[in-house]
Amino acid sequence: MEVHKVVPPPQRSTLKKLKNRLKETFFSDDPLHQFKGQSCKKKWILAAQYFFPILQWCPTYSFKFFKSDIVSGLTIASLAIPQGISYAKLANLPPIVGLYSSFVPPLVYAVLGSSRDLAVGPVSIASLILGSMLRQEVSPTKDPLLFLQLAFTSTFFAGLFQASLGILRLGFIIDFLSKATLIGFMAGAAIIVSLQQLKALLGIMHFTKQMGVVAVLSSVFHNTDEWSWQTILMGFCFLVFLLLARHVSMKNPKLFWVSAGAPLLSVILSTLVVFVSKAQNHGVSIIGKLEQGLNPPSWNMLHFNGGHLGLVLKTGLITGIISLTEGIAVGRTFAALKDYQVDGNKEMMAIGLMNIVGSCTSCYITTGAFSRSAVNHNAGAKTAMSNIVMSVTVMVTLLFLMPLFRYTPNVVLGAIIVTAVIGLIDIPAAYLIWKIDKFDFVVCVCAFLGVIFISVQDGLAIAVGISIFKILMQITRPKTMMLGNIPGTDIYRNLHHYKEAKAIPGFLILSIEAPINFANSSYLNERISRWIQEYESEEEVPKHSDIQFLVLDLSGVSSIDTSGVSFIKDLKKTMEKRDLELVLVNPVGEVMEKLQQANKAHNFLSVDSLYLTVGEAVASLSSKMKGQISNHV
Amino acid sequence: MEVHKVVPPPQRSTLKKLKNRLKETFFSDDPLHQFKGQSCKKKWILAAQYFFPILQWCPTYSFKFFKSDIVSGLTIASLAIPQGISYAKLANLPPIVGLYSSFVPPLVYAVLGSSRDLAVGPVSIASLILGSMLRQEVSPTKDPLLFLQLAFTSTFFAGLFQASLGILRLGFIIDFLSKATLIGFMAGAAIIVSLQQLKALLGIMHFTKQMGVVAVLSSVFHNTDEWSWQTILMGFCFLVFLLLARHVSMKNPKLFWVSAGAPLLSVILSTLVVFVSKAQNHGVSIIGKLEQGLNPPSWNMLHFNGGHLGLVLKTGLITGIISLTEGIAVGRTFAALKDYQVDGNKEMMAIGLMNIVGSCTSCYITTGAFSRSAVNHNAGAKTAMSNIVMSVTVMVTLLFLMPLFRYTPNVVLGAIIVTAVIGLIDIPAAYLIWKIDKFDFVVCVCAFLGVIFISVQDGLAIAVGISIFKILMQITRPKTMMLGNIPGTDIYRNLHHYKEAKAIPGFLILSIEAPINFANSSYLNERISRWIQEYESEEEVPKHSDIQFLVLDLSGVSSIDTSGVSFIKDLKKTMEKRDLELVLVNPVGEVMEKLQQANKAHNFLSVDSLYLTVGEAVASLSSKMKGQISNHV
Repeated sequence: MEVHKVVPPPQRSTLKKLKNRLKETFFSDDPLHQFKGQSCKKKWILAAQYFFPILQWCPTYSFKFFKSDIVSGLTIASLAIPQGISYAKLANLPPIVGLYSSFVPPLVYAVLGSSRDLAVGPVSIASLILGSMLRQEVSPTKDPLLFLQLAFTSTFFAGLFQASLGILRLGFIIDFLSKATLIGFMAGAAIIVSLQQLKALLGIMHFTKQMGVVAVLSSVFHNTDEWSWQTILMGFCFLVFLLLARHVSMKNPKLFWVSAGAPLLSVILSTLVVFVSKAQNHGVSIIGKLEQGLNPPSWNMLHFNGGHLGLVLKTGLITGIISLTEGIAVGRTFAALKDYQVDGNKEMMAIGLMNIVGSCTSCYITTGAFSRSAVNHNAGAKTAMSNIVMSVTVMVTLLFLMPLFRYTPNVVLGAIIVTAVIGLIDIPAAYLIWKIDKFDFVVCVCAFLGVIFISVQDGLAIAVGISIFKILMQITRPKTMMLGNIPGTDIYRNLHHYKEAKAIPGFLILSIEAPINFANSSYLNERISRWIQEYESEEEVPKHSDIQFLVLDLSGVSSIDTSGVSFIKDLKKTMEKRDLELVLVNPVGEVMEKLQQANKAHNFLSVDSLYLTVGEAVASLSSKMKGQISNHV
Repeated sequence: MEVHKVVPPPQRSTLKKLKNRLKETFFSDDPLHQFKGQSCKKKWILAAQYFFPILQWCPTYSFKFFKSDIVSGLTIASLAIPQGISYAKLANLPPIVGLYSSFVPPLVYAVLGSSRDLAVGPVSIASLILGSMLRQEVSPTKDPLLFLQLAFTSTFFAGLFQASLGILRLGFIIDFLSKATLIGFMAGAAIIVSLQQLKALLGIMHFTKQMGVVAVLSSVFHNTDEWSWQTILMGFCFLVFLLLARHVSMKNPKLFWVSAGAPLLSVILSTLVVFVSKAQNHGVSIIGKLEQGLNPPSWNMLHFNGGHLGLVLKTGLITGIISLTEGIAVGRTFAALKDYQVDGNKEMMAIGLMNIVGSCTSCYITTGAFSRSAVNHNAGAKTAMSNIVMSVTVMVTLLFLMPLFRYTPNVVLGAIIVTAVIGLIDIPAAYLIWKIDKFDFVVCVCAFLGVIFISVQDGLAIAVGISIFKILMQITRPKTMMLGNIPGTDIYRNLHHYKEAKAIPGFLILSIEAPINFANSSYLNERISRWIQEYESEEEVPKHSDIQFLVLDLSGVSSIDTSGVSFIKDLKKTMEKRDLELVLVNPVGEVMEKLQQANKAHNFLSVDSLYLTVGEAVASLSSKMKGQISNHV
């Protein structure tokens, strides 16, 4: 039988290997691919289009597209105006900041962003986190100006951080927020946000400043005398209306305009009701007088020194990561639906720049919101032009319509927020996670419980910590499997998986399924001793077949480090002491290379202890074994 | 041709899977194995022997063994006495504490420890860390009593922490200190320790309290007026003598007694020289009067409250981990030489209890020291009895010989320390790491530079952080390889590794070499698109052979999570949009199980998209392809 040699991979210099590794790490999507072999002028055009995606779609923009974008832009504007006001209140900021934030950032994104469906503006979770983190040090009621300054500064840092991640091509950091973490986190945050709305929905004046479930509920039931029946009645009616509208749109996506228009309609209706009935004199709290006019500049409000620098850095980091994760996930989801590509690192730069510009023009943190982007998509948006349309609509509102919101009751804003965040609780997805992977479900539950009982940022940190711990545990305790031959073939598979596979007498064939490194080499050592022990004490195997060969299938070992090499070296020695021959099968490129390097220093591997397949190793060693026996006889 | 089916592994309940996972994680060495099928009485004896290994060797102890142990015990005592005094000074503790620590802990270890070669006592690096960390808050000269109390309390926490790791079976935590980290760390610590000895070797009075290279060297050269030529001369002579003795023993291990006896001989000689020449009046500093008598109890000196609790906890944690790592590594090294087993978790309990008992009897942190254990081994130690012999010798010293050390010059202690730690700098090992694994070398260098320029604990933390980061990067950017067929066989191997392998027209065969999870699913998505792109733009492949099948070999994917399952599901969809058929090969047990679960919810995998080997997949799909073409014609 022909036996194939295991050869080391073609020689490459350390520099080349390093270059390749860096490319895989930071440029895995090969962004320069399209530049290859183009003329110089073309390269300039491509580069401009790369940095300003608007140049890609603008030249071929048609009137037909514009019609679609007008419809979708107006639709999301009708959603963005009430949500903007509501989310700004969630962040403890003046309501008008929410509208400012729906004006400038969409314009910036339309120029820089590569997603066609993303509808940009303030979002619930980032607003909640920003508000609750800043409130730890500064009171938004006692010192509103400082609070606003810190909010803008945090937004600036969030943007800076987001853009840096994109520029440094470290976008993979957001991958560490797994889907399971996000589902638990979102659900927890939705509950926290909804509980906060009990203040507005019940008309309570003295509400707790804490976020935890326990604190909020006890605050609600300690202030029952402050409950206002007029507020509760109005809140209940609009909540039912909004939830019904949401239900209709979910059942039939073509009726997207029902849920998209409902919030604005609720605002108009409730404002009229209050204006006519003068309910503000009967315990219904209203927004009050709002300023008019476009975003004032705010770069002079950014604070880079003083006692709160640590707080704004931390707040910027956390809100930056969270809003980035949401924006990228939303962008990718809709890109996959329409089959186009969204470049994660470029998106980060776009979102980051949008927030930096926003922080200088009285906007707080913004990103692509899931619910609004879904409406945008359903309304038939073709390009980022719909963001421009929305932005213009908000501008008109800011210039002329602000006095109309004076009598808008806070309770309807609460109802709008609750309806928006309720969609973040995704029970079917959590159930599917439970069915597929129990450990992921544990991560999901930890994120959820952490958020509702400890705090939003700690819940997130716990869930990410557990996810990373799981990865490390998988490395520390890699799987080893005992292989057996499937009769009549050359195929070797796990004996405990394929019942038809049979062990070969005299051989213990193990497959290792992880990189061998410092974290697992002592475990592997122990585990292999145990395999030998178990194999020898197994009764099914005929007694005369003591193990003679230990065959290690290294196909699944993608890399090895110095501890791993020492492990192989020591294993070889130990096996020799026990009169066992260690044979390695199919070490892949890097592993083969390092074993060879180590072999130069301590000659521990001979040529005939390396085989390309398990089948060839067994065949070749069996004939050797028989040869020995016949010599012996 | 026969095609083998991929079947899901035999069903197991979640509980059973959990049990198995926990066993692999915490009881991978199967410590209860020996209890299986024994009588009740035998089980009790085995349990007693498990907890008190002295019961294993004591009943069969022979006079022949005793002779060997006496020799080795006396040898290591002659090393332990001067080293004990020196290391206590390194930790800023009274010299006698070093002798106390060489009396009680070896007795405890002799009863509880399972290594036959470990020589227990104070060690240089743990002493250095203890001294330098406590000095951050308390001055050993201004408040010596408090300093001593904190040292004992830190030792108590170190012991508690070590024992808990053993009891909770979390011993694998020390595996995260890789060999590369330790080599760099040890070398850095050796330099820091040696530099500290310049105080004694040059006879400087006003020495910096800092540890960093820069601070120490500037302190040395700013105080040149304090240099004492008598001290320098004496130090130089004894240093040369000790280094020569070390060199002799290293060249010929049978002359182990040369280096083992040299320190004690130096102490005796130098003491005589000082006593005769009255050198203490000429600028040579001496130890001074020492107390006599055995360890006083110190449990009343343990402080569990007050402002320094954080410090002692941190010091205990770090010294505990470091000394545990040293002790276990030394134990395993010599166990491998003599081919017996050392149970890591049991050793942790032994070392931990030893330190807890030690902290109550005026001892500071102790562990198995490498240099002394090597001497013990070379001197022919058979059992832990050699520790008892050493302990008794130290006891005699404490009771009767203490006045003799009064005139011992500090400079000779400095020379003893330098000689001891110089062996920790292992340049050949660092060179081998460089040859085998460049990244490991980076870790090693970072540990080294971090220790000498920042601080001992930060250097360690940086190196461990980088090592873990490397593991995470390997997971985040897993290897994917394009496979090709080795002509005339059914073997498929990496095209870029085996030149004889040939790509199959119409097929793109990729192998993924890591668990698929949240951290890498978006990378894999991008990478696979790039493989398709590269394959299609490759000029070598004939133009007519557009890819029709994407074959993913999952043999190396040891596990998958919900994000990974979504990745496969989404990939299937994307490939369908591009008119490509996705086929999976050999998903292992867990992966198959989860894919099946997900398939129940969203039916995305048909039976004929799963194959057991790449060869079978290619053969079966090729015949299908031909069938299609002939139908077409």
